[in-house]
Amino acid sequence: MRISELSQRTGVSVATLKYYLRESLVPAGVPVSATRADYGESHVEQVRLVRALIDVAGLSIERVREVVHALSDPPTSRHELLGIAHAVLRSTSHDGAATDAHDRQLSDQLIDRLEWRVPDDSVARAQLGAALDRARRDGLEISDETFAVYARAALLMADQDVRDELGLESAPEALRYVILGNVLSDPVVIGLRRLAQEHVSAGKFGGR
Amino acid sequence: MRISELSQRTGVSVATLKYYLRESLVPAGVPVSATRADYGESHVEQVRLVRALIDVAGLSIERVREVVHALSDPPTSRHELLGIAHAVLRSTSHDGAATDAHDRQLSDQLIDRLEWRVPDDSVARAQLGAALDRARRDGLEISDETFAVYARAALLMADQDVRDELGLESAPEALRYVILGNVLSDPVVIGLRRLAQEHVSAGKFGGR
Repeated sequence: MRISELSQRTGVSVATLKYYLRESLVPAGVPVSATRADYGESHVEQVRLVRALIDVAGLSIERVREVVHALSDPPTSRHELLGIAHAVLRSTSHDGAATDAHDRQLSDQLIDRLEWRVPDDSVARAQLGAALDRARRDGLEISDETFAVYARAALLMADQDVRDELGLESAPEALRYVILGNVLSDPVVIGLRRLAQEHVSAGKFGGR
Repeated sequence: MRISELSQRTGVSVATLKYYLRESLVPAGVPVSATRADYGESHVEQVRLVRALIDVAGLSIERVREVVHALSDPPTSRHELLGIAHAVLRSTSHDGAATDAHDRQLSDQLIDRLEWRVPDDSVARAQLGAALDRARRDGLEISDETFAVYARAALLMADQDVRDELGLESAPEALRYVILGNVLSDPVVIGLRRLAQEHVSAGKFGGR
């Protein structure tokens, strides 16, 4: 297909597509003349992924490039795949959060109590630790009971997430799914949580 | 306390505190001389809230002002409170997402199938609808089974959230808790989900 059709199929403007191509976020099309190139279904998929990473996950162009690179060179071990996906998706807003040793120790204890099998240098562990430190610093006390409930809910979702991933045979396909899946379903999960709060609240306080 | 101590207590620089004060995001201190004002514990709380709204939730100054206004004039009905909190927290990244009528109908059906008691004009409903539309548009298929699991997890969390909120007696206190709680615990929930994925994945694929 021509670039105009790629634009129509993805809803991304031709100008933005040219920018993605220039930045090598999307592979070049097959040249058919000096001024025209041909694009295929893999381009449609790639454009959607890049847009989701930029618009929904809020990743920088640099970070999107890391994702694209990881996809072109997927790991052979299926377990490593998740660590790579999480590393490229790590939340930018928490990167610089400085926390003192005391805070860090408290959140490590909380995480250790879950007894989950996760390496010490896992990006997800650092991300959760930063979120917990930040919550404490800004005055939100998450009780042990509430934390345990969130952990149960997270396990429920993760079990389904990994089940869905298992259905995919090739490593690049699985990596793409894990990245796109997390980026696009995080807002769904947060939206569902808000909606569920309104539902539960209506039952307790009476609604309209 | 003096502004320098307020800065120490909150970890927010004096320059940023002065900016918050100028923008009326934090109420003025009690003047003790022509050049000095006195700040109390309520200022510490307010500064933390404003910082969380800007840094973690990524709200604009305009939107933070809405939150501050809502807090100064809380609703009398406890159920309305949640709608107000969700309205001020609505995700900016989804505001402009244009979706066609077909997409909107599909996500409405999915939400209706939950049979939750939520008004049609709820902000959470619109937010979830936009997230679902976006996921579909960018190529993520969320199966009915997966959606049902996410909904179950969301209900589990929401039940605990409303229970925690019930412990708070005054409406302003509850509104502050709901806003700060959602802003600061969303990243905790997302972090837990990632960590749980690694744990489940380690069990299925073998880890280090």
